[in-house]
Amino acid sequence: MSLEIFGITGVGEIEPGDDLAAILAAAAAEHHGGLRDGDVLVVTQKVVSKAEGMLVPVDPDDPLSHKPLVERESVRIVRRRGDLIISETKHGFVCANAGIDLSNVRRGYAALLPEDSDRSARRIRDAIAARAGVTVAVIVSDTFGRPWRRGLTDVAIGCAGIGAIVDFRGTTDTEGRELHVTEVAVVDELAGAADLVLGKATGMPAAVVRGVDPGWFRRGEVHAELIRDPAEDLFR
Amino acid sequence: MSLEIFGITGVGEIEPGDDLAAILAAAAAEHHGGLRDGDVLVVTQKVVSKAEGMLVPVDPDDPLSHKPLVERESVRIVRRRGDLIISETKHGFVCANAGIDLSNVRRGYAALLPEDSDRSARRIRDAIAARAGVTVAVIVSDTFGRPWRRGLTDVAIGCAGIGAIVDFRGTTDTEGRELHVTEVAVVDELAGAADLVLGKATGMPAAVVRGVDPGWFRRGEVHAELIRDPAEDLFR
Repeated sequence: MSLEIFGITGVGEIEPGDDLAAILAAAAAEHHGGLRDGDVLVVTQKVVSKAEGMLVPVDPDDPLSHKPLVERESVRIVRRRGDLIISETKHGFVCANAGIDLSNVRRGYAALLPEDSDRSARRIRDAIAARAGVTVAVIVSDTFGRPWRRGLTDVAIGCAGIGAIVDFRGTTDTEGRELHVTEVAVVDELAGAADLVLGKATGMPAAVVRGVDPGWFRRGEVHAELIRDPAEDLFR
Repeated sequence: MSLEIFGITGVGEIEPGDDLAAILAAAAAEHHGGLRDGDVLVVTQKVVSKAEGMLVPVDPDDPLSHKPLVERESVRIVRRRGDLIISETKHGFVCANAGIDLSNVRRGYAALLPEDSDRSARRIRDAIAARAGVTVAVIVSDTFGRPWRRGLTDVAIGCAGIGAIVDFRGTTDTEGRELHVTEVAVVDELAGAADLVLGKATGMPAAVVRGVDPGWFRRGEVHAELIRDPAEDLFR
């Protein structure tokens, strides 16, 4: 199996109400020969939030003006140190600043996370099937930190048409023994892979991963599959 | 920028003392047209540990026989629940079971982490330069869980010839504002991307990521760059 990963160029600025699926499909058609059946389309959260109008005015001269929003979008503060808040969002994600930030958003506005990123992914997938006639999987990605390790990585906050987790239990290893606990969060690995071609400053809001194992395509959902039950979470 | 990712086929079983760099370079030459300058070679920890002889005998009939090793390889227990131990290893990684496991290892043995995975990566990189005459970056990858999110992903435990973190601070976003904190753990994203073509049961121990931004190539080290200082870690 080999994969090809490329960023979709020529997308331009996304505004509230824009038909993001149509814009991405058109840019892919113009610059990359079009989306194909079996492609995984990774779309960064920022443009999904913009298209869905999840923008909130903030004082452009106060770098901390989005902090009250962070409290509002959180259901639980997990850790706090100085200005940094690690919280559980109403969606169940544990991340810094409730996933809210100001970069790549018009001055004077903050972008909130989509209300339901799995639904956002399903809508993009359905619209691409309807408009471009191709069946793709869609991942909505965002940039999170993590405990113990420095640096940020992109992870999936929503998906459609692909399992969030692929379960290799029941398969055997090279010694013929059954693999016991090997549930791989493939949508997180795909989101991170897409970030390698998107970078942070390019303005490219989406990438295509081509060549993914078709056995991974099914109805999938980040919320149901990837969010660890707080009762079984050792770090909440 | 576009990336190509493929697993290296035809590697075969790795034994203690094997010249892993030579074996991987030969398999890449035979099956994939050879490694090229600028390739990122991702090698899974298991074969690095095997080649380096990091195998310890355990009772093959006791599924918990490696647990004393976990205690020995740990400098701090972070969480414990039932048989599950999340600990900080002597290398500074926080992971389950000190990174020790039994899958894809000969019956009756457990594989420990390499003593120094950055050094392992440097040795593979240097040997490939010497033998195949190509300059590659090398990442040693392992499979870790994480708090809050279900499923495992592959991350980097060692690297050579590539920065563990790429710092986008100082660059500007699409609105012309300076990006403040955008340090991306590219070696973790590369390790996860490689896992997408390796899977868990294939026996393929290494993958190539081709097309990575040459600006990321420099002397890099997971240990110095990616391990968060316990004093600034909110979850230790």
